[in-house]
Amino acid sequence: MTLKEKAYAINFDLATGLSESKTSTKRYLADMKKLFNHVELLEDSIQQGNNHMVYEYYSVDADVPKTDGDLHFGTSIVYPGKVGDEYYMTKGHFHEVLATGEVYLCLSGEGYMLMENPEGDWQIEKFIPGQAVHVPPRYAHRSINIGNEPLVTFFTFRADAGHDYGTIETKGYRKLVVEKDGQPEIIDNPNWEQ
Amino acid sequence: MTLKEKAYAINFDLATGLSESKTSTKRYLADMKKLFNHVELLEDSIQQGNNHMVYEYYSVDADVPKTDGDLHFGTSIVYPGKVGDEYYMTKGHFHEVLATGEVYLCLSGEGYMLMENPEGDWQIEKFIPGQAVHVPPRYAHRSINIGNEPLVTFFTFRADAGHDYGTIETKGYRKLVVEKDGQPEIIDNPNWEQ
Repeated sequence: MTLKEKAYAINFDLATGLSESKTSTKRYLADMKKLFNHVELLEDSIQQGNNHMVYEYYSVDADVPKTDGDLHFGTSIVYPGKVGDEYYMTKGHFHEVLATGEVYLCLSGEGYMLMENPEGDWQIEKFIPGQAVHVPPRYAHRSINIGNEPLVTFFTFRADAGHDYGTIETKGYRKLVVEKDGQPEIIDNPNWEQ
Repeated sequence: MTLKEKAYAINFDLATGLSESKTSTKRYLADMKKLFNHVELLEDSIQQGNNHMVYEYYSVDADVPKTDGDLHFGTSIVYPGKVGDEYYMTKGHFHEVLATGEVYLCLSGEGYMLMENPEGDWQIEKFIPGQAVHVPPRYAHRSINIGNEPLVTFFTFRADAGHDYGTIETKGYRKLVVEKDGQPEIIDNPNWEQ
């Protein structure tokens, strides 16, 4: 039986999102210099020896074929924290096959799914435990943790979709979610390039 | 903004799999006459006034477009029970777009994902909480509850995949999972039609 025909299973801890049978990809503050608005605060933190882990995620890239009939999936864990007033978040990405969506199920924690399309239209959905969010095709998507616990989600996308991180790293997101007076607030990104 | 471009969110109770914002599709014993091996025991149960619910599931058919770039999703809840020695299960189905897979995440309960392709090859994976299972393209799939609690799973599939229940209802599954001496056992289906 080829990989193409083989069922694949992996176990995740539903509380933490972690798996014992796989190594996650980890993103630290130093990997996120182009993403946070206050890069000087991020640099300060790293220089003080606090290159915190911002998020980690699991990928089944090596285990499931990348055809348009297969689905890839995994968990994403965004840790609580802020760079200045900006909440910890994922880099955010478009799919290389732009017209493909993604489904997220929030397992734990509290936050937002922030989405925008190449024309700059944006949408936002709340993450609370049990919340399932369908990201429409053509929308970049970023998970943002606004709580005090890890934000754990389970995601599924078409296996051939691919990841385009470069566009967001270059032009940024149109909107940012920051803390103001103890509450999350959506603001325009002063550095967004149309 | 058209439906095509709109994010969609729905909340599920992670413990029960149920949603307050949507009506589930419910399958009772009377809907499953062609599926269980001991149909005479199923008929007895119904005649005694016990047309139990075997499973229920949620669909986002009306909420998310059915393109090959979108994804449909929902929860499935298979209740504990047996018809004779056969555990409660879902009908099981192929996709109409045969070469599309599906991803299941087990949220609660214990059971199996039983899969078979049109040529009669079969595979089985265990469901325990946190277990994510990728059903490969071309494989029919059926969830089977072998425990004493509801088996709750969250599923995602390509939105244009469609459901073919008729093939399984006509020819049956090649394998059945039954209880023998208090343990699950995989047996050949005596009524399977090649």
